[in-house]
Amino acid sequence: MRNLEHKLSVARGEAPAESLFQNAQLVNVFSGEIYPADVAVDDGRVVGIGPYEAREVVDLGGAFLAPGLIDGHFHVESTMVTVPEFARAVVPHGTSAMVIDPHEFTNVLGKEGIQYVLEASKGVPIDFFVMLPSCIPATHLETSGARLHAADLAEMINDERVAGVAELMNYPGVFLGFASELEKIRAGKGKPIDGHAPGLRGRNLNAYALAGIRSDHESTELEEAQEKLRLGMHLLVREGSTERNLEHIVPLVTPQNANNCSFATDDKLPGDLISEGHIDHSIRKAISLGLAPITAIQMGSINTARHYRLRNHGAIAPRYWADFLVLDDLEKFVVRRVYKKGKLVAEDGEYRGPEVAAVKQPRNTMNICFRGADDVAVAAKAGKSIRIIEIVPEQIITNSVTVPAKVEEGQVVSDTSRDILKLVVVERHNATGNVGVGFVRGFGLQRGALGSTVAHDAHNVVVVGVDDSDIVAAVATLQKMGGGQVAIDSGREIAALPLPIAGLVSDRPLPEVVDKIEALKQAAASLGCSLPAPFMSLSFLSLSPIPALKLTDQGLVDAVKMELTSLFVD
Amino acid sequence: MRNLEHKLSVARGEAPAESLFQNAQLVNVFSGEIYPADVAVDDGRVVGIGPYEAREVVDLGGAFLAPGLIDGHFHVESTMVTVPEFARAVVPHGTSAMVIDPHEFTNVLGKEGIQYVLEASKGVPIDFFVMLPSCIPATHLETSGARLHAADLAEMINDERVAGVAELMNYPGVFLGFASELEKIRAGKGKPIDGHAPGLRGRNLNAYALAGIRSDHESTELEEAQEKLRLGMHLLVREGSTERNLEHIVPLVTPQNANNCSFATDDKLPGDLISEGHIDHSIRKAISLGLAPITAIQMGSINTARHYRLRNHGAIAPRYWADFLVLDDLEKFVVRRVYKKGKLVAEDGEYRGPEVAAVKQPRNTMNICFRGADDVAVAAKAGKSIRIIEIVPEQIITNSVTVPAKVEEGQVVSDTSRDILKLVVVERHNATGNVGVGFVRGFGLQRGALGSTVAHDAHNVVVVGVDDSDIVAAVATLQKMGGGQVAIDSGREIAALPLPIAGLVSDRPLPEVVDKIEALKQAAASLGCSLPAPFMSLSFLSLSPIPALKLTDQGLVDAVKMELTSLFVD
Repeated sequence: MRNLEHKLSVARGEAPAESLFQNAQLVNVFSGEIYPADVAVDDGRVVGIGPYEAREVVDLGGAFLAPGLIDGHFHVESTMVTVPEFARAVVPHGTSAMVIDPHEFTNVLGKEGIQYVLEASKGVPIDFFVMLPSCIPATHLETSGARLHAADLAEMINDERVAGVAELMNYPGVFLGFASELEKIRAGKGKPIDGHAPGLRGRNLNAYALAGIRSDHESTELEEAQEKLRLGMHLLVREGSTERNLEHIVPLVTPQNANNCSFATDDKLPGDLISEGHIDHSIRKAISLGLAPITAIQMGSINTARHYRLRNHGAIAPRYWADFLVLDDLEKFVVRRVYKKGKLVAEDGEYRGPEVAAVKQPRNTMNICFRGADDVAVAAKAGKSIRIIEIVPEQIITNSVTVPAKVEEGQVVSDTSRDILKLVVVERHNATGNVGVGFVRGFGLQRGALGSTVAHDAHNVVVVGVDDSDIVAAVATLQKMGGGQVAIDSGREIAALPLPIAGLVSDRPLPEVVDKIEALKQAAASLGCSLPAPFMSLSFLSLSPIPALKLTDQGLVDAVKMELTSLFVD
Repeated sequence: MRNLEHKLSVARGEAPAESLFQNAQLVNVFSGEIYPADVAVDDGRVVGIGPYEAREVVDLGGAFLAPGLIDGHFHVESTMVTVPEFARAVVPHGTSAMVIDPHEFTNVLGKEGIQYVLEASKGVPIDFFVMLPSCIPATHLETSGARLHAADLAEMINDERVAGVAELMNYPGVFLGFASELEKIRAGKGKPIDGHAPGLRGRNLNAYALAGIRSDHESTELEEAQEKLRLGMHLLVREGSTERNLEHIVPLVTPQNANNCSFATDDKLPGDLISEGHIDHSIRKAISLGLAPITAIQMGSINTARHYRLRNHGAIAPRYWADFLVLDDLEKFVVRRVYKKGKLVAEDGEYRGPEVAAVKQPRNTMNICFRGADDVAVAAKAGKSIRIIEIVPEQIITNSVTVPAKVEEGQVVSDTSRDILKLVVVERHNATGNVGVGFVRGFGLQRGALGSTVAHDAHNVVVVGVDDSDIVAAVATLQKMGGGQVAIDSGREIAALPLPIAGLVSDRPLPEVVDKIEALKQAAASLGCSLPAPFMSLSFLSLSPIPALKLTDQGLVDAVKMELTSLFVD
């Protein structure tokens, strides 16, 4: 610690503190109490609790002073904005530290993606800690921008901003004891290893825990969460934009087990950050469901810090960072002011923190070899049906459905009358020329095409469209923009969100991104799309680990058998 | 982990487990629940919870199955027996892991003392973790057998059996920011740093916490403990042989803060291990004071494991060591059976674990240069009074009292009529020839002498006696025994406990040691001694950091001013 000797003299009362937060109702997450106290701060840290001399006094007038909040598991790419823009949105909601998994950046950029997010977070009034992505690529059935092996994790694990190994999504690989997965756990060298085991129960869950997995954020039902908690897994109660599990899991939390529970958001759309907030939203919701405010605050602060060994975060006590929220009412939990390392960084919902310049963008990641119409044409096979992907609204699973093909001039084509549209995935990292072509039901487009370079997990170019020319135009437009999302009508771009940073993230302010997302949604609707979140649905159609049928640059994936399959059914 | 792949197949139910603990009421310290369950064990670890096939089935008939217990802070030298003998005594009480501070061994033997205790604990059915002694020697006013600097700690800290840095007893040095002490904290490299701050409150306590101290076991009053807890210090609630703080501190524990509280014993006399037990005693006492059994058990297991990052101890869940207690009644908490790594090691109070051979004893540590009567004679100074040490019964503090000297033939001598006896400290590590001579009130001896090489913290030879010839005989006897405790009457040994291991620990079985301690006490009483624990009182008369007046090999120590002082008062 910088200037510890001086800070000790301040703590002893021999020199004035930089500032004193006076007349607070201190929310003490260690003792579980709330009581009147003053808090002395020097050089960004709490140095003492009690009456102290200080050069600046902040009279809190009896307001509550709580520790800054921590998100225990987050993919910052889901916000589609840069780290400083993300911070601008969530700092007013009290977020002071983040445990992030830069899974998307890393799929595209490899280790450079981890370095980028660490660089980009320097200077923002939120401390970022990285869990090292453990499943790059997600499967062998798609082409990502990078591969990360256990040795890569081992190389980075000792960095002090690296908190552990991120979600082991290949959970069958773990409980089946695949050497590659067990090596990734060992690469954690004793740091926390995050789990990801949706619906895993019983013996296989025991095996997953036995392998060394000590957390999970995928529980959607109370019984599932209870089983994981009983096996010693820290519960990250998730309340994100799409996955909303808090209501189902919070009833499990008791004072006797709460220290094994934290809050996380996983993925959060930019609009939701503005409309509902962040971890403060989880706390409010938990309190409204009957959890004691002190317990909810512990879950949003010290419990997470402890689990991830963030030794100076999540509490208001000597040596801890002076990350504070000021609140008038603990039950309502509306954050009035936010301090980061002792400095005011937000007030009444407005960001007041430092203006942090964007760091140098990573290299252009649009490296495409695409020959246009020839690449997306599908020659019909006489008398054969096709298997198509059927969207399950608001879920990432899909159905596999067999239907008769519509054939024109010897080609299988979209059939808007049955809502069967062509789906194309173009590899964009290594100019392999890989193009996967299939068909999908559920978008409802009557004309045009929708395209995106956000396409989990490999983030290749994915386009759905009625006719080939619009599909080709979508690919060309995305390439020109350096990645992004686009809606095409009759060869013309009618809405677009450029995402020049890895094809995942905008370089523009968050409100502008929110507007463009809305414009894209409107454009999709104008083309006939009936889905509530068409670009999100599109982005999950390549996610090869998730059943039942997906499309990657390598072709159609039977995600139950985990193998490539053919469009045509015998 | 050894054979992880095989254990995973057992967890998946594809191969039989080694053993199944069936029909248990599982005490789950994560979920805070108690419920019926079966526990499968393989190769020493829990591999699964639930119905499993196993080669051996242990039917628990509905008894409670709780995790093995952990002592959060202990000086194993206080038992005066070797580690295997200690284990034999406490394993039947459910102790499965220890966090020890080999402070006494290290004062005598230096780093060799740490290695010795690590070696000696191999193979015993208790896992030992070492906190590195941080205050060797205790002060500059005594001569110990070794000096440990921050660099020595840094050299050993990465050992996997080293859990952190032991109690920073020089707490003023810490809160005043002495470089030597702050360096010791930095040498911890992020591992836990134990505190030791009896009675420290207010600003100086804030400074102590600010320096990085995150635990304390010295609180004797509820308000003191509360203040420490509020500042983020893990409370090790102490219930040892002499310091019994549990009753005063347990009322502070609530479900909202219990995870910041653990049990510890600090020092435990061999007789007490037999008569009352160990951490099970703390749990029983806490329950009798109204604490919920589940909370008390958490304090005796997982809370301690978490604080010291013992990642596979303190709970019954996959990957954790299969360290179990079987109990018929949680409120009464009488341990019926104990399993260590899945093997029965105690039943109905009887040790059933492996017979562990003693390791090679450390070198003889009695390295004395003593010239006999000449060294202990005190020439009187005409008209001058003397300052004497006055014992405060059952406390380690002393008073400093000024009295007229009794002079015979030009020498200051003992005066049994006023209970003023000669006290001698002979340096025993480096044959320096240092001998400190003073006088003490409180023993009540009418004749003879009592001597000990257990003499905190430097463990030199300390002898109290009526006349010089018996004092000299005591020193000679202790030297001949290689260290120990002795009672002398008229030049003859009337009781003795040899402590050949570092002058601190016997090589004999615990019951024999208990008998000899009792014999020594009887012998002291036969010489007129009125103290309840004369050898313990004797052992603290050299403890130079503790006020008011002490005697070391360097002479009388004014332990308030922390400087040497003279026998004679002007």
